[in-house]
Amino acid sequence: MKLVEDFNEVRKYTETLCNPLEIEDYVVQVADFTSPAKWHLGHTTWFFEEFILKKFNPSYEQFDSKFNFVFNSYYNNVGERLERTNRGNLSRPTVDKVYAYRKYVNKAMLNLLSKNINKEIVELLTLGINHEQQHQELLLTDLKYMFGNNPLFPAYNSSINFVNTVNTVNAINEDSDWVSIKEGVYEIGYKGDEFSYDNELSPHKVYINDFQINKSLVTNREFIEFIESGGYADFNVWLDEGLNWKEKNKINSPLYWMKKDNVWFHYTLSGLEKVNPNSLLTHISFYEAAAFSEWKNMRLPTEFEWEIASEKLDWGKRWEWTNSAYLAYPNFKKAEGAVGEYNGKFMDKQKVLRGASVATSKNHSRKTYRNFFNSEERWQFTGIRLVK
Amino acid sequence: MKLVEDFNEVRKYTETLCNPLEIEDYVVQVADFTSPAKWHLGHTTWFFEEFILKKFNPSYEQFDSKFNFVFNSYYNNVGERLERTNRGNLSRPTVDKVYAYRKYVNKAMLNLLSKNINKEIVELLTLGINHEQQHQELLLTDLKYMFGNNPLFPAYNSSINFVNTVNTVNAINEDSDWVSIKEGVYEIGYKGDEFSYDNELSPHKVYINDFQINKSLVTNREFIEFIESGGYADFNVWLDEGLNWKEKNKINSPLYWMKKDNVWFHYTLSGLEKVNPNSLLTHISFYEAAAFSEWKNMRLPTEFEWEIASEKLDWGKRWEWTNSAYLAYPNFKKAEGAVGEYNGKFMDKQKVLRGASVATSKNHSRKTYRNFFNSEERWQFTGIRLVK
Amino acid sequence: MKLVEDFNEVRKYTETLCNPLEIEDYVVQVADFTSPAKWHLGHTTWFFEEFILKKFNPSYEQFDSKFNFVFNSYYNNVGERLERTNRGNLSRPTVDKVYAYRKYVNKAMLNLLSKNINKEIVELLTLGINHEQQHQELLLTDLKYMFGNNPLFPAYNSSINFVNTVNTVNAINEDSDWVSIKEGVYEIGYKGDEFSYDNELSPHKVYINDFQINKSLVTNREFIEFIESGGYADFNVWLDEGLNWKEKNKINSPLYWMKKDNVWFHYTLSGLEKVNPNSLLTHISFYEAAAFSEWKNMRLPTEFEWEIASEKLDWGKRWEWTNSAYLAYPNFKKAEGAVGEYNGKFMDKQKVLRGASVATSKNHSRKTYRNFFNSEERWQFTGIRLVK
Amino acid sequence: MKLVEDFNEVRKYTETLCNPLEIEDYVVQVADFTSPAKWHLGHTTWFFEEFILKKFNPSYEQFDSKFNFVFNSYYNNVGERLERTNRGNLSRPTVDKVYAYRKYVNKAMLNLLSKNINKEIVELLTLGINHEQQHQELLLTDLKYMFGNNPLFPAYNSSINFVNTVNTVNAINEDSDWVSIKEGVYEIGYKGDEFSYDNELSPHKVYINDFQINKSLVTNREFIEFIESGGYADFNVWLDEGLNWKEKNKINSPLYWMKKDNVWFHYTLSGLEKVNPNSLLTHISFYEAAAFSEWKNMRLPTEFEWEIASEKLDWGKRWEWTNSAYLAYPNFKKAEGAVGEYNGKFMDKQKVLRGASVATSKNHSRKTYRNFFNSEERWQFTGIRLVK
Repeated sequence: MKLVEDFNEVRKYTETLCNPLEIEDYVVQVADFTSPAKWHLGHTTWFFEEFILKKFNPSYEQFDSKFNFVFNSYYNNVGERLERTNRGNLSRPTVDKVYAYRKYVNKAMLNLLSKNINKEIVELLTLGINHEQQHQELLLTDLKYMFGNNPLFPAYNSSINFVNTVNTVNAINEDSDWVSIKEGVYEIGYKGDEFSYDNELSPHKVYINDFQINKSLVTNREFIEFIESGGYADFNVWLDEGLNWKEKNKINSPLYWMKKDNVWFHYTLSGLEKVNPNSLLTHISFYEAAAFSEWKNMRLPTEFEWEIASEKLDWGKRWEWTNSAYLAYPNFKKAEGAVGEYNGKFMDKQKVLRGASVATSKNHSRKTYRNFFNSEERWQFTGIRLVK
Repeated sequence: MKLVEDFNEVRKYTETLCNPLEIEDYVVQVADFTSPAKWHLGHTTWFFEEFILKKFNPSYEQFDSKFNFVFNSYYNNVGERLERTNRGNLSRPTVDKVYAYRKYVNKAMLNLLSKNINKEIVELLTLGINHEQQHQELLLTDLKYMFGNNPLFPAYNSSINFVNTVNTVNAINEDSDWVSIKEGVYEIGYKGDEFSYDNELSPHKVYINDFQINKSLVTNREFIEFIESGGYADFNVWLDEGLNWKEKNKINSPLYWMKKDNVWFHYTLSGLEKVNPNSLLTHISFYEAAAFSEWKNMRLPTEFEWEIASEKLDWGKRWEWTNSAYLAYPNFKKAEGAVGEYNGKFMDKQKVLRGASVATSKNHSRKTYRNFFNSEERWQFTGIRLVK
Repeated sequence: MKLVEDFNEVRKYTETLCNPLEIEDYVVQVADFTSPAKWHLGHTTWFFEEFILKKFNPSYEQFDSKFNFVFNSYYNNVGERLERTNRGNLSRPTVDKVYAYRKYVNKAMLNLLSKNINKEIVELLTLGINHEQQHQELLLTDLKYMFGNNPLFPAYNSSINFVNTVNTVNAINEDSDWVSIKEGVYEIGYKGDEFSYDNELSPHKVYINDFQINKSLVTNREFIEFIESGGYADFNVWLDEGLNWKEKNKINSPLYWMKKDNVWFHYTLSGLEKVNPNSLLTHISFYEAAAFSEWKNMRLPTEFEWEIASEKLDWGKRWEWTNSAYLAYPNFKKAEGAVGEYNGKFMDKQKVLRGASVATSKNHSRKTYRNFFNSEERWQFTGIRLVK
Repeated sequence: MKLVEDFNEVRKYTETLCNPLEIEDYVVQVADFTSPAKWHLGHTTWFFEEFILKKFNPSYEQFDSKFNFVFNSYYNNVGERLERTNRGNLSRPTVDKVYAYRKYVNKAMLNLLSKNINKEIVELLTLGINHEQQHQELLLTDLKYMFGNNPLFPAYNSSINFVNTVNTVNAINEDSDWVSIKEGVYEIGYKGDEFSYDNELSPHKVYINDFQINKSLVTNREFIEFIESGGYADFNVWLDEGLNWKEKNKINSPLYWMKKDNVWFHYTLSGLEKVNPNSLLTHISFYEAAAFSEWKNMRLPTEFEWEIASEKLDWGKRWEWTNSAYLAYPNFKKAEGAVGEYNGKFMDKQKVLRGASVATSKNHSRKTYRNFFNSEERWQFTGIRLVK
């Protein structure tokens, strides 16, 4: 069965991503918004145990009764949990134990799936697989954050290449690089019959004005121009909270960038490297994206504009900040119970990102996908696409 | 000339609002988000001095060269300024001095206006008048916050009545209380030829699905039901950040409410009073509004839904939280220079409120007006209107 | 009776100190460690009401039952109280009301004292008088802090002169300026029969090694040398916590000092003035005092050394930091009840200061007096005396 | 040579202490005041490299030039360093690498010592050995803190027994349990010719009043009485800062204690165990020690009282809080350069502890030893001895 194959493959791929790691690399949590690799391994496993095994296999015995406390992320309906900031405080369970937990749950899952796959299990299994794919990307970005903040700048994998190179040098300046979209009513949201998250539903109409959107993302060259012409100091191009954020945190370049002897370097998953001006800019906050756009006398797309234009765009290399708040679509419905906490409760102050990144797992992107992060977050592979 | 009359009237009304105050009441700043009455008096005056007198009267002499530092609110283009949190740290200039400043600037303004009213002056004067009207409302809400946090609960004015009473008891439960709006394309935004803020422009089309919106706002009775049935403790109805906010701040009732011997009281501008169940609920955060709606299995309107339905609604008694982020309309344009900082730079994480409140100055409301505050703010007269 | 005269005089002097104030100046609290003038006026009055009138006059009626909440400083035994940081949030009671409160309590006190002065009343009255004298000094230092942090730098009283001038230029460099004390056993602590605080009791012996102590305090000239030779940047002369404090708060000169066009100015109670190099240095923290001493290859005295040498020293112009922790003397006894909270519960991390300052009320200094503040506090009139 | 033997033994013992650890256990830093085991291993090694090898072996090549940044603790004279709070953020260098570093430095040290042991090397080597012994104790207390805060409560070593049991049940109530010391002049401080820290020097006289000190430390039974009679809630027995600390942190029992079904348990290095009433109380802050003493109408000893009485006391099982501030002795002299930062710069707000604990390395205690921690710290093995 395809779904069981997907399950096996996704479960295995998470572990493959951990191949380059030393034991020590599984343990550390550098920031509140990241998690240790060990925790990602356990949490994605707990998801299947909690939402499928405990529900559909009455004789299932938990691997360890305390793991619910340790590996629950944010589901209030499933009881007390470790505070998010304490994930890096746990030397135990050991990495070995966590791998044993994965093995145990995998086996129980395959056993269950060999006997019984009702519609509800299919839905939860599909959700669990997509959930683990999301954590695969987070695993990579969290590891990058950990290594990139280590004064030794260790490589995660010296042969990985997550730095895209583009051909065009000044993409946003050529007329032919812009896609024009006509004013009118368009339909938005997922309407296929495969998997989508609840936040992409239900499909509905929006009215859009004329706009032009660039086919490509902004390059490092273009952002270096912004830096060198004093963009970080020009308060007129910044949002008010962005200005405060930038000043409080003394931000004057993208995350992972540093200047040595007047040359820009950045930490990449393959180690410290010179910034390639022709590569796509990444690791910038919404605030930097908005300031850059303003400085260009352009703006960011809304998520609707992006979705409408997406088929004519080159996308999938960087998550793209939109100027849309992450809010409910008309007729949005939360699932019952704990699974209903997956998306809906975060519909508040965050911004929508569209597209996908070099770190996104394959088969885990589509044009209706709504990713969301806070305006100041930079540790995802985030980029800029301009609209005029 | 009408505009000069308006200027005189608005300038005078600000002072009228201060009539009930003792000198001490002008000085205090209880929270970062409020300002002392003295500061409002000075800042609204500085606005005319800075943006009109200094620009259009070359021989104008400032009242006091340090007042630019003291009374500039947030205009980066006009130089260094006092930190917002320090406004209550200034015993000087005295209240008398601030009134003298008002008199001086009023005189200089009338003198200028008697000689020269070009288009640019008209625009800035109109903006200044509207600006002062906004501060009139803030003056009242800031005073309420100061008195309401004083253990002596002094009345601002014992004969003021800002507590609306409504006839219907269970407004939201009667079918006849709901307005139905049909799916389709509607036009949004200010298109008249009188004053509007830049954030209401430009008028544009939106596509709206069918919805029903209540004619009335939620009453205290309805919210007391929410409280008494455990709404504050039911994590499933809260947004994630709302839950954190509520728990961190130990919130379990609207602002200014307190229970004594099992009876709800609230501080009002006329002193401490019993909560009237038939009055309109006010002083709740967006988070409480959203939780209440969820608990009712309904939702808040978007700002577009509100505007489209507004003509059939009873509005103007409470600012109404919408489920819309405060973002730019298509083709939004910031003014050049400091005045461009008025609205645009706050288009980020805040929520839009529509309508007006009992504290809003007359002639300062319209159906396209976009007010905006942070999701946790409660000191404005904020209420709830439901959509289903 | 002398004590009643003292009472009248001290009560009156507090009000005299407020003569130069505008109403607005009574209200503001700039920092947690300062209090508004209005609060000092009320609190010193409450002390007599709470500890004498309510106890010894059974028919006494409180002026206002809520004033216990408002004007209790830190006495847990007397019930709930306003948080210290909120003293500046109260516009009410008005200044007039507080003066009326003083009048009311004064009258009730004089009435009581005319009928009945038992030993316990005498003790508490004496304590209350000394307590009010302490607040007189705090009133001045708190007002200085308020005015000195106002960008307008208003003078408290343009004819006051709290800046001591000394004759000798390089006091600490002349042999004749040093007092030598011989090793041996000395007696410490108050042993007279007039008033002293409990923390000066009981008298006891200490063993002291040979030391030399300077007759004079350090001058501005000497401290400017420290500044100009890089003393603030030389980490080897700083205590570890002092280093952190200095860096976190970007301290590089005494409090109230600022450099304009290469000239040092400082805010004084008579306004902004040039720093006189021959005046006594003041407004430095213990950390700055300790760093300066280390830089001089000298040290601060202990409180015992100071007391033993005091008769040969010129003292009384500045509180002098000692290198002694504020801890209990042998056989220290706390009074019963709330009055026992006066001193003992603060015997922890603070440093002892000896002497008195220009702002100390007359008849409120003696050689055994133990003043105490935290190592980083600078808003008292604090100075340095060296030992070698 | 004895010193070389000591070096070998101490270096080896640190590694022996790590035998029970998994790789993961070396990495985690739960609190700012603790360090990862890996860091202790590296830092004690760096001490020999930095202060001996680099100075006395001109051809010495550093193991890794970045380790100075990573393993410097607080020596400003030796350059920039990792912020203390970031020690747990480093997955690299790996544990293997750190052991290789130890081996490399040990070899270089033995090589140097085989050729050249001048007086300065002897002094620094002795300091380095004592320094590593201090870190051996910290290693144990830091591991306890890490395991004790893990919801799985893993044992460090199930056969270790660090919980002392005493015979007497109500030690402090029997007359025979008290040692009486007579008033007079005593000599304090280290005067032998073996190693001591600079802070124990120079020997000097103090004058002491009569006092009685208990032969034993307070037991769990006695402290449970304090808890059960409401000692934590009785504000009159607490120091003011202690009260704030206790309320802010919701403290109502010693560190590591928890009540299950009305029975007290505590985490020990051998796992979770019932509290034995006859064992010595440990893991209490100075504030709890002071509150308990006050509640008993007794007090803590000063460090001088302790030292004078020490020969008649049963000591060495728990660090004992004294009521003495950690300040310089008369004629205290800091060493030149970085080594001078060892002790002197911390002479500020901390309290002195005397004695030793079950976790103190052998040959690392003496009656003049001055240990020091902040009043709120509880993760060392700290106990209470009473004076009356």
